[in-house]
Amino acid sequence: MSVAEQMEVLKRGAVEILLEKELLEKLEKSEKTGVPLRVKAGFDPTAPDLHLGHTVLLHKLRQFQQLGHEVFFLIGDFTGMIGDPTGKSETRKVLTREDVLRNAETYKEQVFKVLDPEKTRVVFNSEWLSPLKATDLIGLAAKYTVARMLEREDFHNRFSNQMPISIHEFLYPLIQGYDSVALKADVELGGTDQKFNLLVGRELQREWGQTPQIVITMPLLEGLDGVNKMSKSLGNYIGINEPPDEIFGKIMSISDDLMLRYYELLSDTTLQELQNLKEGMKSGSVHPMEAKKALGRELVVRYHGAVAATAAEENFIKRFRDNQIPEEMEDLVLSAESGKMLLCKVLSEAGLVKSNSEGRRSILQGGVKVDSVKIADENHELASGSSYVIQVGKRRFARITIN
Amino acid sequence: MSVAEQMEVLKRGAVEILLEKELLEKLEKSEKTGVPLRVKAGFDPTAPDLHLGHTVLLHKLRQFQQLGHEVFFLIGDFTGMIGDPTGKSETRKVLTREDVLRNAETYKEQVFKVLDPEKTRVVFNSEWLSPLKATDLIGLAAKYTVARMLEREDFHNRFSNQMPISIHEFLYPLIQGYDSVALKADVELGGTDQKFNLLVGRELQREWGQTPQIVITMPLLEGLDGVNKMSKSLGNYIGINEPPDEIFGKIMSISDDLMLRYYELLSDTTLQELQNLKEGMKSGSVHPMEAKKALGRELVVRYHGAVAATAAEENFIKRFRDNQIPEEMEDLVLSAESGKMLLCKVLSEAGLVKSNSEGRRSILQGGVKVDSVKIADENHELASGSSYVIQVGKRRFARITIN
Repeated sequence: MSVAEQMEVLKRGAVEILLEKELLEKLEKSEKTGVPLRVKAGFDPTAPDLHLGHTVLLHKLRQFQQLGHEVFFLIGDFTGMIGDPTGKSETRKVLTREDVLRNAETYKEQVFKVLDPEKTRVVFNSEWLSPLKATDLIGLAAKYTVARMLEREDFHNRFSNQMPISIHEFLYPLIQGYDSVALKADVELGGTDQKFNLLVGRELQREWGQTPQIVITMPLLEGLDGVNKMSKSLGNYIGINEPPDEIFGKIMSISDDLMLRYYELLSDTTLQELQNLKEGMKSGSVHPMEAKKALGRELVVRYHGAVAATAAEENFIKRFRDNQIPEEMEDLVLSAESGKMLLCKVLSEAGLVKSNSEGRRSILQGGVKVDSVKIADENHELASGSSYVIQVGKRRFARITIN
Repeated sequence: MSVAEQMEVLKRGAVEILLEKELLEKLEKSEKTGVPLRVKAGFDPTAPDLHLGHTVLLHKLRQFQQLGHEVFFLIGDFTGMIGDPTGKSETRKVLTREDVLRNAETYKEQVFKVLDPEKTRVVFNSEWLSPLKATDLIGLAAKYTVARMLEREDFHNRFSNQMPISIHEFLYPLIQGYDSVALKADVELGGTDQKFNLLVGRELQREWGQTPQIVITMPLLEGLDGVNKMSKSLGNYIGINEPPDEIFGKIMSISDDLMLRYYELLSDTTLQELQNLKEGMKSGSVHPMEAKKALGRELVVRYHGAVAATAAEENFIKRFRDNQIPEEMEDLVLSAESGKMLLCKVLSEAGLVKSNSEGRRSILQGGVKVDSVKIADENHELASGSSYVIQVGKRRFARITIN
């Protein structure tokens, strides 16, 4: 693949590349010398239970691997082993060496479903940070000013709002930046919320006489509702350890726009295939339902294998057929004010019934199903942050996402 | 001496004692248990050339020694050996271990003219700070917030004026405070400009479960001009290594008010003797000239011995007699606008001549002496920050201090 083509692959889905020109130069040099780029991404040392949101970064790393580069999967165990020494979170458990190693194994089990183990080096930053002396840290702290550190958005906000910031919190971005020096990273990947820290790495590398790393920020993936960031606490996530039927079913429940977003950030389709898909959907030659099935299959194959994927798809089709649920139905998004919404109100707002009271009657008469389950309680509420297939009588269906 | 009397001695000349009540308790406990208090003062590791301004602190330490307590003369070699890693002062030389030890010897030669070597422990903070790990420093940094550190006056001013503050500068007050933890200091002495740092020590000791140290701040000694802080760069100082005649002569040149100030801060006179002196001067029973001679003798004895003191006094008297300079003359203070002042202007402003032009004529006619030296240049200038004995003709004299 030409360097120009590589650039196209690497730009896919990225929010920012700082600086694109330098990435181009690094790729050219790597091609000429045959020396792969060193690509770094840092992860928390806590016990991971990854969802698709976490895998956005892993996919970008995998693309680097597919282009022949070397990935450093950095586990930030140094701070985990000293604990967060602020007063506020004294309950945070200090991790032992064994905790860290056990967590690392759990990480590997999960991330190697995306990353190529052959081209991945799992490293722990305690390796170079634990031997660091206080004097080294003072030298590091001398490279950055208080005013510039306060430019980081969260620090800035806390400072403006008279919320305490402990001085050691100013040291963490420096330590994280120093990881890039220790690894001689050519590229560092992170979420958009990590941009400040990644840029600190660039500057510290300059101070150490290294060519500064390229910073690539990836978006925070939207959850099933298509609006909020995917997260456990919002309940709008697909965990990579969830059962095949769950993963497949959840993918089938998302909106068409969100499907395209997931294709861009999570799928192995080529840029050309992605382009064809978009155009086909626009012209009507590609059926969104079929595209969702393909995405669902791809993800289940990745996390559970091909056999499970075929079974999940068949189960999905059978479930819908048995429930006489059409494969296509109207997609609607409603807004809940308080994190939940009365089912009767959902019915009327979705136009499935004419009024809340008609909705209540339909429920009491046993004519309403949510995700194929009959609901008999007229005061039943639906939680926001999820999508539901709602059926009234035999023929009225809608897929409703509540924000 | 009773604890109450000890308190009176220790309060002499001090600007603040935080907290007096706690000092009283510590003194009482020490008297009861027979365990002396551990009194700390920190000094720069640079090659010292001490002047009387520096000795204010030493005198307070000596008073603690005279009351039976133990003094820790702390040489802050840790930061000296890592250098100041800011961009601004890259020229500052990093001190080697030998430099530090050599400087320490120079210190000892000088400070043991004030301190009792038997009751002084010279310690280097590198002893406990060099082995410190980065993790220890992070733990230390977690004890203090950014907002509180910015309350320190110089940080606050620099931050408000958009002058850069490097993050490592926030670490120094913590490190200095940690010295108090390491030494288990009961009392720390410093200049008024050190108050913030000394209070950090109090807080860190609390964090480490120690009874917080008492902070005693001493004033910055005024120089010979009686106005500005004594300093080398202003030229208004008395170096403790200056020749006996210089020390004695400079003491004879200061104002009566400044003499009392020096008595309070530098002399071994008892509180009662100091009281008698003040009252005697008010009632006219003590002659200021005699009191100055006594102070000059005391200081020369301290730094050069009794023989040198007698010689210095005799030389002074002889010089004045030979020059027919009266022992008493008018004391005047003039303000220079630009660090210096034309001699002819000094003459007219002091009322020794009627106008600048008369001053110029007197100079050209050879009738003007400054410190017994004839001046023939009508454009001769006197530097500010010093005192001069000026003579016009045979009989007109004045001692003039230029600020």
